[in-house]
Amino acid sequence: MKRIGFQFKIKHDRLAEYKEHHQHVWPEMLDALREAGWHNYSLFMRADGLIFGYFESEENLAVALAKMEATEINARWQEFMTPFSDSNARPDEGFTELEGYFHLD
Amino acid sequence: MKRIGFQFKIKHDRLAEYKEHHQHVWPEMLDALREAGWHNYSLFMRADGLIFGYFESEENLAVALAKMEATEINARWQEFMTPFSDSNARPDEGFTELEGYFHLD
Repeated sequence: MKRIGFQFKIKHDRLAEYKEHHQHVWPEMLDALREAGWHNYSLFMRADGLIFGYFESEENLAVALAKMEATEINARWQEFMTPFSDSNARPDEGFTELEGYFHLD
Repeated sequence: MKRIGFQFKIKHDRLAEYKEHHQHVWPEMLDALREAGWHNYSLFMRADGLIFGYFESEENLAVALAKMEATEINARWQEFMTPFSDSNARPDEGFTELEGYFHLD
């Protein structure tokens, strides 16, 4: 099992609305994440819009993203989130993997 | 159980040495973290020295830090790490909590 950390950026002036959408993520999107093996997945925000993601998977980030890329629901969700992205691109196209260097069970 | 995300900063030109020390964290420091209830604790680095931490605890970050603050070994470890800190202060004095806004088991 791998522990994956990544980051991306959301427009800070749209954080409240972005956060609200994440209280109501589409059930089909949650199912797709589960089926793609994204476990114990959490997202955290900094006040300026920097987002940190953490999840556990049998796969690395590239493979876990590719499994989501293969689903139609992910394309719809990412397009829905694109206006909130700091880069004006799909958020999942801006995921930057971080290097894990310490772990304690 | 709470899922806690936080960040701090390490001097980017000392990241390699800092990382090396984390392959050999003192066993007494690991024991203190376990006894203070820091579970499934991972640290991730960005190339510029931004560090993201994730752990699970029955307590919030302030209480989890206070439990470590009460141990002598934590003071020794934090002093050992201070030269690597971007702020030249103890790393644990610069932990900034992030806001969790999404979770999928």
